[in-house]
Amino acid sequence: MANALRVLAMDAVEQARSGHPGMPMGMADVATVLFTKFLRFDPTDPAWPDRDRFVLSAGHGSMLLYGLLHLTGYPGLGIEELKRFRQLGSITAGHPEYGHTPGVETTTGPLGQGIATAVGMALAERMLNARFGDGLVDHRTFVIAGDGCLQEGISHEAIDLAGHLCLDRLVVLWDDNRISIDGATSLSTSMDQQARFQAAGWHTETVDGHDGCAVEAAIARALAAGKPTLIACRTVIGFGAPNKQGSESTHGAPLGAAEIAAAREALGWTAPPFEIPADIATAWRAAGRRGAAERARWAERLEASPEAPRFRQALSGELPLEVFAALREHKRTLSAKAPSLASRKASELALEAINGATDLTVGGSADLTHSNLTITKGLETVQAGRFGGRYIRYGIREHGMAAAMNGIALHGGLVPYGGTFLVFADYARGAIRLSALMGVRVVYVLTHDSIGLGEDGPTHQPIEHLAMLRATPNLNVFRPADAVETAECWEIALRSRATPSVLCLSRQNLPTLRTRDSEENVCGRGAYVLREAAGERDVTLLATGSEVELAVKAADLLAADGVEAAVVSMPCWELFERLPAEERRAVLGTAPRVAVEAAARLGWDRWIGEGGAFVGMEGFGASAPAPALYQHFGITPEAVAQAARSVMRRTS
Amino acid sequence: MANALRVLAMDAVEQARSGHPGMPMGMADVATVLFTKFLRFDPTDPAWPDRDRFVLSAGHGSMLLYGLLHLTGYPGLGIEELKRFRQLGSITAGHPEYGHTPGVETTTGPLGQGIATAVGMALAERMLNARFGDGLVDHRTFVIAGDGCLQEGISHEAIDLAGHLCLDRLVVLWDDNRISIDGATSLSTSMDQQARFQAAGWHTETVDGHDGCAVEAAIARALAAGKPTLIACRTVIGFGAPNKQGSESTHGAPLGAAEIAAAREALGWTAPPFEIPADIATAWRAAGRRGAAERARWAERLEASPEAPRFRQALSGELPLEVFAALREHKRTLSAKAPSLASRKASELALEAINGATDLTVGGSADLTHSNLTITKGLETVQAGRFGGRYIRYGIREHGMAAAMNGIALHGGLVPYGGTFLVFADYARGAIRLSALMGVRVVYVLTHDSIGLGEDGPTHQPIEHLAMLRATPNLNVFRPADAVETAECWEIALRSRATPSVLCLSRQNLPTLRTRDSEENVCGRGAYVLREAAGERDVTLLATGSEVELAVKAADLLAADGVEAAVVSMPCWELFERLPAEERRAVLGTAPRVAVEAAARLGWDRWIGEGGAFVGMEGFGASAPAPALYQHFGITPEAVAQAARSVMRRTS
Repeated sequence: MANALRVLAMDAVEQARSGHPGMPMGMADVATVLFTKFLRFDPTDPAWPDRDRFVLSAGHGSMLLYGLLHLTGYPGLGIEELKRFRQLGSITAGHPEYGHTPGVETTTGPLGQGIATAVGMALAERMLNARFGDGLVDHRTFVIAGDGCLQEGISHEAIDLAGHLCLDRLVVLWDDNRISIDGATSLSTSMDQQARFQAAGWHTETVDGHDGCAVEAAIARALAAGKPTLIACRTVIGFGAPNKQGSESTHGAPLGAAEIAAAREALGWTAPPFEIPADIATAWRAAGRRGAAERARWAERLEASPEAPRFRQALSGELPLEVFAALREHKRTLSAKAPSLASRKASELALEAINGATDLTVGGSADLTHSNLTITKGLETVQAGRFGGRYIRYGIREHGMAAAMNGIALHGGLVPYGGTFLVFADYARGAIRLSALMGVRVVYVLTHDSIGLGEDGPTHQPIEHLAMLRATPNLNVFRPADAVETAECWEIALRSRATPSVLCLSRQNLPTLRTRDSEENVCGRGAYVLREAAGERDVTLLATGSEVELAVKAADLLAADGVEAAVVSMPCWELFERLPAEERRAVLGTAPRVAVEAAARLGWDRWIGEGGAFVGMEGFGASAPAPALYQHFGITPEAVAQAARSVMRRTS
Repeated sequence: MANALRVLAMDAVEQARSGHPGMPMGMADVATVLFTKFLRFDPTDPAWPDRDRFVLSAGHGSMLLYGLLHLTGYPGLGIEELKRFRQLGSITAGHPEYGHTPGVETTTGPLGQGIATAVGMALAERMLNARFGDGLVDHRTFVIAGDGCLQEGISHEAIDLAGHLCLDRLVVLWDDNRISIDGATSLSTSMDQQARFQAAGWHTETVDGHDGCAVEAAIARALAAGKPTLIACRTVIGFGAPNKQGSESTHGAPLGAAEIAAAREALGWTAPPFEIPADIATAWRAAGRRGAAERARWAERLEASPEAPRFRQALSGELPLEVFAALREHKRTLSAKAPSLASRKASELALEAINGATDLTVGGSADLTHSNLTITKGLETVQAGRFGGRYIRYGIREHGMAAAMNGIALHGGLVPYGGTFLVFADYARGAIRLSALMGVRVVYVLTHDSIGLGEDGPTHQPIEHLAMLRATPNLNVFRPADAVETAECWEIALRSRATPSVLCLSRQNLPTLRTRDSEENVCGRGAYVLREAAGERDVTLLATGSEVELAVKAADLLAADGVEAAVVSMPCWELFERLPAEERRAVLGTAPRVAVEAAARLGWDRWIGEGGAFVGMEGFGASAPAPALYQHFGITPEAVAQAARSVMRRTS
């Protein structure tokens, strides 16, 4: 049965003239044991909530996964799709893509992401188990990881967190083949991985990855270990290719016709490409039916459970209407009271409303809880053995946090949000990108969003980060100007089922500018006229977040000079882009435009046009109190007013 | 003496009403032992090449470092500067900044960067030692790191690399205070750090960080360990503040007047703020003079050494003229032969010329050597005990690689470059930003720079990365269109002493477009007219890298229709921005403009203006052969020509 996986991988890579045969051939035996003896799944219902999760962290070995999905009978994965491996429009992409192929639990390829995402899945499983009990939630998360996954830094964050939380239903099968792209792993690492995982509180096993019985026994011990487990599977990369196996030449290129023929010979495989002998195909189909009865029993338990409505609601991903009602009421209060609040504080208030109205949201922070203001009243900390809580101490691990949130969102049943400083979006970039690529609802609460953070200085002051995030497809980047906008942005983030959100929030206080309550979620337009000019516009001032206040003050200065300025708040460019062109034009107006944002200019020219001006940062920040920095870098109402006068002259 | 550090930290943070007293107070004893007994330095010559390097990886404890530099007599760090801690224009910024304060070896603050940068410094020391011998290069690298540094993923990459290379002159003093911002570290980690470091091949020690004798003995053992060493220093955060010590409340906020008074009492410190009793000040000054004699002896050895000119040349950072002559000759050959080459291959050819003309360049790759094409003939791999090589196997560790390159560049004597895929700039973001902030000459060779990489699919296809890098201050982002431009961009990168460079390079072949040789480095203008219109321009086509070829073909299509199109190649926006406005206008022209780049639009509106059009990516890529992807996403000469016709209509 394992040879079927090997041959499919060889043949599909050869046909595509592109791909990675080495890993599937090396791990075929391990995967066969896992899928025929342990993994609980049912190809007729790939989304069965209590299925085991399987994550191919070494995503380049995608043909291993496609082979498994094909042989066990997943829908849509007929042999024709395998023949179209890596071709346009196929569901057999170069790396496994979530949402693209049934049975693919998460997108992998960027190394280490899979294992870190799996930590989130395993955590979500325990958290849902604590809420719904063994009868409804009782599954495992299995990972196949390669040397690259374990060399990447994110793996450290992931295994430390998993060990700390004692996620004993997580099993990582490490393809210990001692080969990476450049050659022997001994070129670049001397790590004792077993000792390293033990140091993080994991159970470890070491087996011959081509000895099915040994692998089976090791997995069985892992399931009883009471800790997360690493199984080091000693394998030969490209196993079965007689002249190339054990060498990096099998890693990322087709084996070639001659070597494939030799491998068929060596493996005793006589069937032509893409044909599986009937007995082997039958055995695999039987493996694919192993879970059906269990799923049926589970479905009966769910039917009989008094928790069924609550469980279904959680798994549906729909937040209860109470959340939005609470936010609506909260917004009304804010407009009436018009407090002066940092937008991070406004976010905390919004979260009080949200978390009070649902228990589906789970918060956390990368060790900046009282800076990000991500915890609300009554949220208990999640700890090993105490998974009923709703607040995750992610530690000083931004990348691991982001990937874990991806895993929680993918698992289903919970809505994750987590905080760090905006500047440390850098550290989480790899996983934020995957949030966007997969289209999962993860909310990043990124505070201290400009030089306004003050004394910590340029290492902590984001400059290019708004541009970096705005350039990312399918990511909503919010920078609310006041508490009302913050509440609206939170609402949009929670309603965006297929798009992650970033909330960029100030450290410093901001006045409430939206003092007139509105039924509409105005931020849903992305940008809007916060304050129209009294007469015909002489100039339009564009701003986001903490700089909207500056734009309003600049408009006051200009008005005193008889210049009519409108102020446009632009909390979310992505949403504004989606407005019909004429609505966008109405907001931006035909008068010359000045933008102000305490960040890099890149991207703003789209809104200010060639005649416009930008007031913002031209280099890195500095260490000083925030008001001194705004003065120093010339981001002031006076500077905005002056820029307005200058663009008016230029165009008149 | 340690109490002087404590009191200065308390007082400076109090005065600034901002900062982190807990770490300096906790690590004052350890730092005192290090600076009075071990660290080899001379404040009269902070740049002495054979000094020991001291890296405060836990950069928030900057007052510890400023206190040390002040007390040992570094220039410019009088008591007045300590009083101006975290104020605008002071050299006592919130976090230590390289180039801003004498004695600060690297910018720290983003956690984990210091330890990973120190690995590069320790590696550079061994590499220079292999070249120049013990007489000229024989120093150590000491790091103070906190819990955050060890939780961040980058620390894993760094310690694995250091252990593998057996960098036995690296000593990490871990401030093991069991407190992070959110509270006890037991909230988020259960890692056995000693076991973890041992797994990576390190020697470890565990001491009471307030027992000077024990710390001294541990450091002495570390120096003889023959491996990199971790010393776990058990400390009490905020040591000396009787009511707050041991608590996270001392971490990141002033202690307050009452607690400072109580701490003075507890420490038996009667001197007023910012005053150091004479005997203690004298003892510290003496510590600051410890290294002078050694430096003098070293200077004598240098004077007497036949290697002196070569050593001075290396340390000067000036590359020999032969490098630029070789590149010039190489460029001439390319223009004459006009090969069709992937720009990654063109980069390899440029590197052959460069590496053949100097031995100061040191290459490497994050396990993608034969994809990045970063190795050239005769470059030996650097390994433990064999540091004479010039090629570093960074492993699958982009972040660690980037930080190590920062360390190599900061150390001096070598010019580092390293490769990965452009998309994995994500993983290295934190360290790339520090390259830019510090202004070090590091060259990032980032290949597979678009959907042109083909079948590996969207996880491997950069979209937003050009925008992310272009938005970063002080970073030159090059995307050369052919082999000639690639050679020119390499030249600029090597000449940019205070700016890191990113070379974005294609996987796919590109024709040579610059077939007329030029003495000038044309890419130095950032953008230029590659092909002028025959008559008056009807339209201007802007492009970078692999899409310049498409623009040229589009111009041909348009010419066949009688439309006069100029083609502008824009290999480096940052340099183009620096041109005088009128030169920029001459290049861009007054005709409507179309830009083409297989990436996100963000940023392009600056160049195309409101009437312009952009042909590029609107979302993530897909898995398919590259030509199919360019067709699928509509990035073709035909699409560019059509966009040109459309903007011409719009503006006519």
